Parts: sequence; structure tokens; C-alpha cells
Amino acid sequence: MNKHKIINDPVYGFITMPYEIIFDLIEHSFFQRLRRINQLGLAQLVYPGANHTRFNHALGALHLMIKAINVLEQKGTLISKDEKIASCIAILLHDIGHSPYSHVLEKTIIPGVHHEKVSLELMKLLNKQYNGQLSMAIEIFTNKYKKKFLHQLVSSQLDMDRLDYLTRDSFYTGVSEGIVGIDRIINMLAVCNNELVVEEKGIYSIEKFIVARRIMYWQVYLHKTTIAADQILLNILKRAKYLVANNKKIEISKDLEFFLLLNTKTKIDENILLRFVKTDDIDLMYNIKQWQNSDDSILSFLCMSLINRNLPKIIIQNEVFKKDIYTEKIKQIKLKFNIKNNNETDYFLTIGTLKNEAYKYKGTIKILSKNGEIKELTTASDNYNLTALSEKVTKYFLCYF
Amino acid sequence: MNKHKIINDPVYGFITMPYEIIFDLIEHSFFQRLRRINQLGLAQLVYPGANHTRFNHALGALHLMIKAINVLEQKGTLISKDEKIASCIAILLHDIGHSPYSHVLEKTIIPGVHHEKVSLELMKLLNKQYNGQLSMAIEIFTNKYKKKFLHQLVSSQLDMDRLDYLTRDSFYTGVSEGIVGIDRIINMLAVCNNELVVEEKGIYSIEKFIVARRIMYWQVYLHKTTIAADQILLNILKRAKYLVANNKKIEISKDLEFFLLLNTKTKIDENILLRFVKTDDIDLMYNIKQWQNSDDSILSFLCMSLINRNLPKIIIQNEVFKKDIYTEKIKQIKLKFNIKNNNETDYFLTIGTLKNEAYKYKGTIKILSKNGEIKELTTASDNYNLTALSEKVTKYFLCYF
Amino acid sequence: MNKHKIINDPVYGFITMPYEIIFDLIEHSFFQRLRRINQLGLAQLVYPGANHTRFNHALGALHLMIKAINVLEQKGTLISKDEKIASCIAILLHDIGHSPYSHVLEKTIIPGVHHEKVSLELMKLLNKQYNGQLSMAIEIFTNKYKKKFLHQLVSSQLDMDRLDYLTRDSFYTGVSEGIVGIDRIINMLAVCNNELVVEEKGIYSIEKFIVARRIMYWQVYLHKTTIAADQILLNILKRAKYLVANNKKIEISKDLEFFLLLNTKTKIDENILLRFVKTDDIDLMYNIKQWQNSDDSILSFLCMSLINRNLPKIIIQNEVFKKDIYTEKIKQIKLKFNIKNNNETDYFLTIGTLKNEAYKYKGTIKILSKNGEIKELTTASDNYNLTALSEKVTKYFLCYF
Amino acid sequence: MNKHKIINDPVYGFITMPYEIIFDLIEHSFFQRLRRINQLGLAQLVYPGANHTRFNHALGALHLMIKAINVLEQKGTLISKDEKIASCIAILLHDIGHSPYSHVLEKTIIPGVHHEKVSLELMKLLNKQYNGQLSMAIEIFTNKYKKKFLHQLVSSQLDMDRLDYLTRDSFYTGVSEGIVGIDRIINMLAVCNNELVVEEKGIYSIEKFIVARRIMYWQVYLHKTTIAADQILLNILKRAKYLVANNKKIEISKDLEFFLLLNTKTKIDENILLRFVKTDDIDLMYNIKQWQNSDDSILSFLCMSLINRNLPKIIIQNEVFKKDIYTEKIKQIKLKFNIKNNNETDYFLTIGTLKNEAYKYKGTIKILSKNGEIKELTTASDNYNLTALSEKVTKYFLCYF
Repeated sequence: MNKHKIINDPVYGFITMPYEIIFDLIEHSFFQRLRRINQLGLAQLVYPGANHTRFNHALGALHLMIKAINVLEQKGTLISKDEKIASCIAILLHDIGHSPYSHVLEKTIIPGVHHEKVSLELMKLLNKQYNGQLSMAIEIFTNKYKKKFLHQLVSSQLDMDRLDYLTRDSFYTGVSEGIVGIDRIINMLAVCNNELVVEEKGIYSIEKFIVARRIMYWQVYLHKTTIAADQILLNILKRAKYLVANNKKIEISKDLEFFLLLNTKTKIDENILLRFVKTDDIDLMYNIKQWQNSDDSILSFLCMSLINRNLPKIIIQNEVFKKDIYTEKIKQIKLKFNIKNNNETDYFLTIGTLKNEAYKYKGTIKILSKNGEIKELTTASDNYNLTALSEKVTKYFLCYF
Repeated sequence: MNKHKIINDPVYGFITMPYEIIFDLIEHSFFQRLRRINQLGLAQLVYPGANHTRFNHALGALHLMIKAINVLEQKGTLISKDEKIASCIAILLHDIGHSPYSHVLEKTIIPGVHHEKVSLELMKLLNKQYNGQLSMAIEIFTNKYKKKFLHQLVSSQLDMDRLDYLTRDSFYTGVSEGIVGIDRIINMLAVCNNELVVEEKGIYSIEKFIVARRIMYWQVYLHKTTIAADQILLNILKRAKYLVANNKKIEISKDLEFFLLLNTKTKIDENILLRFVKTDDIDLMYNIKQWQNSDDSILSFLCMSLINRNLPKIIIQNEVFKKDIYTEKIKQIKLKFNIKNNNETDYFLTIGTLKNEAYKYKGTIKILSKNGEIKELTTASDNYNLTALSEKVTKYFLCYF
Repeated sequence: MNKHKIINDPVYGFITMPYEIIFDLIEHSFFQRLRRINQLGLAQLVYPGANHTRFNHALGALHLMIKAINVLEQKGTLISKDEKIASCIAILLHDIGHSPYSHVLEKTIIPGVHHEKVSLELMKLLNKQYNGQLSMAIEIFTNKYKKKFLHQLVSSQLDMDRLDYLTRDSFYTGVSEGIVGIDRIINMLAVCNNELVVEEKGIYSIEKFIVARRIMYWQVYLHKTTIAADQILLNILKRAKYLVANNKKIEISKDLEFFLLLNTKTKIDENILLRFVKTDDIDLMYNIKQWQNSDDSILSFLCMSLINRNLPKIIIQNEVFKKDIYTEKIKQIKLKFNIKNNNETDYFLTIGTLKNEAYKYKGTIKILSKNGEIKELTTASDNYNLTALSEKVTKYFLCYF
Repeated sequence: MNKHKIINDPVYGFITMPYEIIFDLIEHSFFQRLRRINQLGLAQLVYPGANHTRFNHALGALHLMIKAINVLEQKGTLISKDEKIASCIAILLHDIGHSPYSHVLEKTIIPGVHHEKVSLELMKLLNKQYNGQLSMAIEIFTNKYKKKFLHQLVSSQLDMDRLDYLTRDSFYTGVSEGIVGIDRIINMLAVCNNELVVEEKGIYSIEKFIVARRIMYWQVYLHKTTIAADQILLNILKRAKYLVANNKKIEISKDLEFFLLLNTKTKIDENILLRFVKTDDIDLMYNIKQWQNSDDSILSFLCMSLINRNLPKIIIQNEVFKKDIYTEKIKQIKLKFNIKNNNETDYFLTIGTLKNEAYKYKGTIKILSKNGEIKELTTASDNYNLTALSEKVTKYFLCYF
């Protein structure tokens, strides 16, 4: 059987599966599940074209990894076949631990646990099934492998993950501002002292990449309407959790109920993982559709709002909201929805903060100048805006029905 | 409130909502449901990028309708504001009656009824809610309106529906062969004797459009792997229907059960319609996910196969399958799955036919020559391949586990 | 005869000529000449795809002007048919006064005169030929027309000129970093107090536009190899001028000789203009090809270098070059080329400065916030990088054979 | 010095130079000349975006060659490094013998000689300069090399030349109908019995490729306005030739005069070749610009018409023009231009034929079916339109001022 398959991809044209194990992992049900995890959660309510999934993203990141490895090899960096396979596995599986609706419910489905942690646990489980064939991939993923640059290709300020998601998300949302010169960036990559660096002449492409990332945050990932939709989803889960915990009878699927009852302190064991990989966007959305008819008026109200896209209003500003604005809104909400119980206003009104650092950790993108010197990006650049971009921007939102 | 909204679309960039009623209809829950109906059914199992929905397609077709109307007006065709609105409504709602997974389950969810019939019934229902504002749109949709060309823009060999779906489906699948010169085609449209015609110099674009359509059929819509996946889905529903009809207990959601029990002869009444608009891909896929654990081994086998993309083999050929090949396969299936009951082999082996006429009804694309004469496309063209393309191609498939 | 022509454009698909006068002006020999003026001068020696011309750019800017006017009208701004035509003429002809190789030879062909001044004089000449039909266009072009925003669409920090050239130049060079969200930007335009403003939600697109512009400057317009090629071209003309002025016999075409003998103080009269419109890239390049065989060894060396793309070296740095580096290089050049005459080293070695202000005149892009307030861009934005971008960046180059 | 350069290309993004010799050949003045040979001759008068050159096309074809070789190697075909280099050289230089304005003046500049013959002679000349390094490339180019499939990649019904020019020409003209699925086609290539074949599942892409080629012929290469412009150019050269041959004094550049006096029977020697590589679009267009002021009224009329794009009318039809239409037109022309001499009417009126075979030599595209059988394309395909496409279409034109 031919395992060197070619997959059509609207963004890159063709993606070639380079190794048998990659093909096998893609066929595995853990990976097939990613077909049912939307890449951008509820952003599709703002950008209706954004129906792409973690499955698409993972394949795209794999494609870029293969390209990057080719470029590094052509420049003389030695990478063994095993290392190539391991790097491909690591990037392919880096998001395998994503919860339904990706980031919205991160740390909610398995309370307090980041998706990368879940990805790691699932890789370990797969490693058992594949008799240790994933060991080096796990080392790379957890940055324990000696060739540090391989980890940096998987996870760093300029990894294949980011390059793919910016390109892909801007492609599917139609927000052309997010387009990044991936070909140029990848061609400018090099390895120096075991670290990933960028050749100096690629510096403008890197600046553009950082600006594009910043724009995608405000225009898409933290778009006010996306945030508003996220709040409903979070409040729906909060309410369902409350009802389940308090033995109020609601129709709910078994696996979802299991996760809603899960305690923050629980250790992630195989039982949890096997239930996790059975849970995807379909389960969540089905339950929400059912809950439109729930006896609990709060739950049904929230679910109907989400399904029919009747989203709450949202104000975003640069300063913390003043106490009196907040209390005034609470008063209005109580009247409007006839709420007696003070604890219940939170389902209809949420406050929160949004943070965006376009260039997150100062110092981590290294520029290789022509004379062989290595400088950090903001130092190497001849202008001030990169420094400005590395300031963290914080905004505050008030979201209410 | 601003109802002249702009929507981002990956294919066309921006889509502007031109009229308030259009905006309102898009907000309506009947239309929002289309967000949960995949445009290409199970083709996403072959082309993982093809996650777009009927919602995207309906907006795209609307966009092209507005363009086409502009072109016709510039060429002197009179179209009143009411007619423009009505045409926009007609194209916006033309697919509102699609079942879950679009064409796969057409005539299955509401037995024997084509999606256009359901669209019409839903438009009539909406027309009541909107106090008759959709009356002219319904006339256009059903070709009862005097200006016949408006109907042709909605539904004909060269309608805005086809122009959008070819463009959109080739965009999302990454099959560049399906790309069509929509801008050129729309610019070449004109009205003559109340009918839609194409200016002569657009003839090569039309030929290209027909070839592209033919290619998209074989490469995407009738791709062998898509057909194989469709067979599982159809057999799952068949099995579920059998179990429900015979009082075998399966976990099933209310609305889906209702449809499985529906009789072919039933008249589509408001009750059916209101249940229909609550049923989408989510419900179906959720039930299938649950049925993986069903006690019925046939049902659970089929559902696991679909969810984990373990698709059956499929052979496609130009001739009818010979009896002995078929009986041989049946024998193998019986052994492999240990089947006693002869009726049950059909769940594991399906035969069927595929048909494709690139240019379906001879005579319906009219070409306007420079001297004002109107000819039918195959007559106007200077070559033979169009005649060849209008031959119906039939193929036969045998699909088995 | 049909004057409502459609022109194919690789960037926008189709460009429609909206008015007869526009069609006539495009047919005019002054405008047809732009087919022979390369848009990016010698940048094609770095980016071989950059063969597009001022003709393409002018049509593109016209296309955007029509779009922008549509958007403003839909938002309620009144614009009469005459004003629309005049705006279209103004943008169509804004670059008609460009010298061969566009900016490289600006102020060289007609000494000391900016191309906009020449454009204006040519418009006046055309206005005579067209019996005053261009009067309003000239008022708009020179910002004397009452509706100031029409001038701003033609010439300002955010005019249709810039939007087109960034988009077009990035398209043809293949430098994807220069891609700008033109559709979004144009959709966000509005008029307030007679001035062009941008709706607040378009602010990220504007930021992106400014960053893209800055990147295009360093990556394309001021690319070191382009600068190096420019220096040869400038030195060729300088040498030819010297030879012509000193009665050294060189083969030279009449019109080019005329311009080389032109004095800075000459008034631009009709004679000059009529010779100017006969001079384009073809004349210049032909003379350079001939001069490869000139008896003057400096001229022939420079011409051979340009034709065969043997470009000089170039160093670009942030500080002024130190005297001793310069004198050292001069010494080497003298030896290498066996130069006796001190004045002649300049033909082989050039120093100069490059300047780039991404956002040139502080205060000219106005943002319209939701509450109707108008703020200047850097004030309206929530981050610091725009302020940083409005700093002028100066670099110094040393270019030598 | 780094000879592994990357070149930006608007069509493919980046083109990497794989070998030093390739880099050196690109730097050679014979190849740099291609920067000054327009790819599509005068089609730019119809499609103003079509300013691309033979330089761009040659690099593009090189890029596809590298891709194709990679695919074949991955499928197990053995190709040595020397063979790779030779194939790259052969495709890079395949068009080096093109005359100014490409096909329009083919066989005119060097009378009766096809551009491929000139390319071959120039390769031989280069081979001397490079001490035999091009020998294998020449064998491949002339189909004398044992691995026949390498020649087929350079020159056959499905070579890298065609794949690039269709893609590139449709990109620059904006005629989207010409877009071809190059990635898919190249991925479907294989070698069988030393011949290039296409895997069966690529058959629809091949069909599309042939249809696209046919459309590009009628829509671009044989577009009626292009043909009309070509006629002027041919008549200009014919008139200039006549004047030069009859000692009428016209201003003309030396090299062009040399070629106009050249005899059909002349052998192509080194002297001819060295003058040839100095002659490009610039020379021709400069002379035409000058001839606008010629004393010969026929020459000046034709040149002014071309420069200012005042093109003659043209009628294209499927039948030979009747004698009486022709004589009537001649009569009108004589009156209009006050022509006494019967021989001179031909400069103002031309008749000719246009031929187009989309799939030229029956039998040369081979399809590899899954069972290993090889069939010719029209036999392998399940439909009739390919057979139809392989019919030669002939049209007749009458072009007159």
C-alpha cells in the first residue's frame, strides 16, 4: 500500500507525507479527531469562512517543517533521517491535545491544564502503542533533545506552528493583513551554535511577521465579537457544571458530564485521556443544541443565543472599567432578566482582560549578520517600532446582554 | 443599527449586504442553520480543506447576483429595486432546504423530496413571517415571474449558484482545475428577448466553465473516496431506520427519530418544516458518534468506520458489473463478517451508478453574436468538444468492506 | 463605437472604463507613452518580474478611485457626475509627466523639475486640446477644488496612487510583504468636514499599510542592488551630458541630446513638452546600448556594465562614511581603472543617502471614532510603533566598482 | 561568492538556482539579453499586464524542471547529477535564440530559421566558451541522449516549457482560464520504458491542460487585436527591407540593417550569431519610433500606427475570404490612402490563416494505468472531447486600415 500520499491543501497546494509513520499517525483515531476540532473556535461567527480545523493546521505545520529542514540541510546543517522523522512527528502532534473549540475551552475541559500538556500525555500514550517510535519526537517536543534548533522549529517565537497558523487563519478569514512571507522566512533560516537564527537580509520579513501577528490578534483572535461569543460558551459550560454538580437534571452526554465533574487536582491518567479523545466540537455543540430546551432558563437562554447568533454587546477599552459602570449594568441586567439571585448576573455580564504581546519574549529571535555576529532582533533592527511592538498591550472588556 | 454590513469572504474578499431584508434573513435562525450544513458533505474526508458550508455558498451566490445585476443594468436592462431585492432573496435562500450533509442525504431525511422543494416550502413559511415581502422572490424562484432572466440568474445552466459553487469548491478543495473566470463570464452576460444570453466573445470562457464543471464532478463530487464514504453514511441511516422501525432500542435524538420514521407519502407540513430546521450535521454526526457503541454490531461497525475514516474499497468502471463478480464479493463479505442473514450483506457492499453531464440540457446556454443573432452554445462554437461534453457519461461502482 | 471598454489586469481582474473622456485620454499618445515607462526603473534587475509600467499603474489607480467614490457615495457623500469624471481624470494623469525609468531620472531629464510639475503642464496642454474638459481635474490635482477630499484621494498619505503602487509593486516583484488590504481600507474611507477620514475599525489595516510601505521601501525601492544600478544610470547620463556639453562626438538621438543640453533655469514650454512625450525608456536604453561601443572609455564601461548587469558593489550603513574609507576606495579605483583625472573617479564611486519615512507627514491620516470624534492616526492608535514608524530613517551608501 | 541564489518570481514565489553553472549562464550576456525580449510580443497591446520577458519564462521553466526531476527521483527513476545539470541547462537555454518580439518576427530576423535552430547554434557557441560543459545538455535538447524522457521534459506535448508559459502567460494577462494545475500534473509524472508518462489519476488535469492551452491560443496568442498588431509590425519590417534593398535612405541601426539584408540561404555563422545576440526589442522599437518621421510615407504611417496603437480592423472567420470582398477592400484602401502602385496595397491590407491544434501530435501523451498498461491519452480517456480537441482548427483573417 502506498503510504507516500499527497494531500490537497487550499493554502499550499499539495502536502506530501514523507514517512510511513507519519501516514500511520494521521490515520490514527486520535489524529482523525482533529477533523472535528475547529481551529479558531467561535471566530467563524465573525469570519464565516473560518471553518478550518486543527487537522488542516497540523498538516500545514508538517509541510512547513519539511521545507525548513530542507533549507537547513542545503545550508550544511546535519540532520539525520531519524531526526527528520522525529521533528515531523513532533510538529504533527503538537496540537493533538486541543479541547473542543480549541483555545476557548482550554483549561476548562480538563480544568487548569494547558493543551500542550495534554498533547504530551497523548504522545506518550501513542509512544506505547508504537513501541517507542515516538521517543525522540517527545524529546524534541519537550526540548530535551541535544539539537535545540529542532525544538525551536516546533515551538519558539518563529516556529512552524506560528508560520502556519498566521498564514492559514488569514487565508480562511479573508483578513489579508495576516499574510506572511513564509517562503522568504523559511529560506532565511539557518542554524548557528545549535540555535535557529535568521539571516540578516530576512529582517524585514521578520518585522512584517511580528506586525502581522499583532494585527491577527486584534482583528481575529481577540475580535470583540469573537470574545463576546466566547463568553457565552464559557458561561454555558459554567452553568452546566453548576447544574451537574448540584444534581439538577439536564440531558447531557456521558463523556461531557465526566469532564464537567472533573476536579482541578485530578492527575491526567489513561482513563481521562481515552475519554478526552472521544470528545470534540460535535459533542459540545450537540449538547448546546439540546440545552436550548432545558428547564433551566439561564442555560436555555444562553444556548439559544449562541445557536442563533444573538450575541451580547461588548465594550473594549484601554482602562479598567469603573465600579459604577459595572454596578449600573448589573442593575439593568437584573431588571431585564428578572434575576433574584445575585450570583446569577454573571451569566449575563462578564468582565475580563485581553492581552497581546506581538513579540513575546524579548531576545528570542536571533539575527545572523553577514559578518557572522548574532544579535537579538530588536537590537539588530534599525528602527524603533520593534521595541514598541514588544510592549505588552492590555485591554479590558465588559460584555453583557 | 447598521444593516449595510460587510462580510469577509476568503473567496471574494468582501461581500456587502445591500438591503435590510437581506440582513434580516441572514440573521434568521433558518439561515443561521446553514452554518452547520457542510457544503460538500463527506468530500472533506478526501479534501480536508473542504470545510465550507452552505452558509458560505449562499452568501457567495448573493454576491455574484449583485454583480450580475449591475452588469445587466449597465447594458441597459431595466431592473426595478423591488426586482433586485427579490432576486437577491431568491438566490440567498435557494439552498435553505438542504438536509444534513447536503446532497448525500437529499431525499433521505424527508423521503423522496428534493432540496429545492424544501427550500420553497421554507420560503413560503418565511413569507408569512415577513408579511409577504418574499412573494416576488418566490415567483422568481419558481419561474413564474414575467422577467424570465431573473429566474435564469437563480437557476439555469449558467446561474449564480453554479458560478459560486464551482469557484468556492475548487478554492476550498485546492483543485485548481475547477477555477472559472467568473468576472469575465458575468461581464459577458446580457438580456435579449427577456432571456439571459452570453456575448459571443465570452464563448471560450463558457467552454472553460463547462469543462471545469465536468472536471469538478469526477475529481471532487464523484471522487471514488467520497462515494465510498457516502455509501457508509447512507447505510448507517438505512440501518438506523430499520432498527427504529423494528423497535430495536437505539439511543437516538428525537428529531432524527422523527425523520427516520417519516413516510414517503407524507405531505410537508409546518410541523415537519420546524423539525427540519432544527436538524443539521451536528445532530447526525453526534448520533453516529454515539452509535459506535450500539449493541447492533452492524450499526456500530459502520459508525466506527466513518468516524475513524476506515473507508471501504471501491471499484469504478465504465461497464455494468458482471453478476459473478458481485456474487463472489458477497460470498467473501459473508465469510469475513460472519453474516447469516442475506439481507444484511447490503450494509457492507453497495453497487450503484454515477452520472455526469457537464452541459446538461442541450440548448439552454444562448450565445449573442455581434450581429444580434442568438444561437445555442454548441451551434455557436467552432469546435466539436462541446458537443462531446454534452454526452452523458455513466459509470458503475462496486463498494465493499 | 463602444467606449465602455473593459481591460484585463492581472492584479484586479477587470478594470472598467467608466466615461468616454477617460477612454479617449487613454488612447491619446501622451498616455500610450506610459506603456514604455517602466514603473520601477531598474528594480527589474533585482526583481525580474517587475516589468510593469506606469500605464498599468495609472489604470490601477483609476480602478481604485472608482471604488473609493462608490464607497463614499454609499455612505451619503454627495459627488456629482462631473466631479467623478474630474477625479478619474486627475488620478489617470497624475503620473503622465514621468521621465524614462521613472524616479531614477526624475529632475535629470528636465533638470530640477519634479514629475508632478511636468504632469500638471501636460494636463494643461491636454486641456487645450480637449477644450477645457480637464479644468476641474486640474483644480482637483492642484488642490484648488472646494471638495478637498477629492484631492486627498489623488494625493495624500492614503491616496489611490499609493494603494495601487504598493499592491502592484508587491504583486510584480513577488515581495508578498507589501500586500495591503486595499478592499478593507477603501471600505473604511469616509468624508467628514470635507476631509477624507478612516473609520476607527480600519485602524489596524492602516497600520499594516504603513508598515508595508516601509518594508517596500527597504526591500524594493531602496534595495541595495537597485541603488547600485541607479548609480550607473545616473553616471551614464552625467558622462553623456559632459561629453555633449564639451563637444566630444557621441552618437546620440536628437531628443535625448536636447534634454542633456537643457539648462536648469529653462521654463517648461510647449516645445519642451512635445519633445518630452516623445522620450521614453526605449530611447534611453537604445542610446546606452549604442554607447557600449563609444570611444569614450568611461561611457562605454558604464554602459556595458548596465546592459550586462555587472553591477558595482554597494555598502549601506547607518552612519556617515568616514573620510579615510572614502579616500582609500578612491585610491583603489584610480589604480584599478588607471585614472589620471581626479574628476573622473566619481563615475566609478558614488556616495549618497537614503531616506525613508513610512508615515511621512505627521497628522495627515485622520481617524473617525465611533462617537464622531476625529483624531490623528498616531494619537488614535493604542500602541507606540506608529510613532516609531513616523521617525525618518536615514542610511548612507558607498557604491563602487 | 554565493552562487546558490534565490530569485523572486511573482508566479512561483522563489526560484532557487541549484548549480553554479546555471548561475554563470544566467549571468552571461546572451541570457541577460532575454530581459529585453518580450515573452508575448505585441499581446501587451491587448493585455497591458503582459510585460513579462523570455528571461522570466526561462527561469520559470527551470524551476519546473527541478520540481519534475525531484518527483521522478522520488518514484525511483535514476537521474545522475550530471544529467540533472544538463537537463537544467537545456531548459534554461531552450529559448535563447528568440528574435525580438518573440514569435512575431521568428523566421524574419534570420530569414526562414526557426528559433529552436538559433537556440541550438547559440548553445554550441556557449559550449565552446564553457569547454564542453554543455555537451550533454545539447544532446538532451536535440533528443540524442539515451534517456529520452529528459528530452521530453524539455520538449514534448507536456514539457516544462508549456507548463510554464501557459501558467505565466495567463498570470500576466489576467486570463484566468489558462491556469493549469502544474503541481498536480508534475506530481503525476513518471518514467516508464524510458519515456515520460502520466499516472492515470492525473488524466483530468491533462484534459484541463489541453483545454486551457486551446483557450489561451484563441484568447491571447491568436487574439484578433494581437494579430492585427502583428501585421503592422511585419509590414513595417517588410517595408524597411524593401527600402534598404533599394537603396532608399532610411535611418537604421547597423545590426538591424545587417539582418534586413540577410539572405535566406545564408548559413548561420558566428558573425551572424554575435550580431543576433546584440539585437533585441529595444533596437527594433527604437528604429520604429524613429521611422515615424521617415520620408517614406508608408513606413511612417505604419510606425505611427503601431506606436500610438491605432490598429487596423480585422475580421476573422471560419471560411476562406471570397475574392470579391478582397477586391472591394483593395479598392477602398487605394482611394483612402491615395495609392497608385498596386504592390503597395499589401502594406495596408493583409490576409492570412490562423491554426490551432490544442493537442498537436496524436499519440504523444502516454497514460500509465494502475495495472501498468500504457495507453495514448485519447484512448485512455472516457470521453470524446479530447478526440475533438485534437482536430486542427483553421480560421482566416482579413486585416485592413
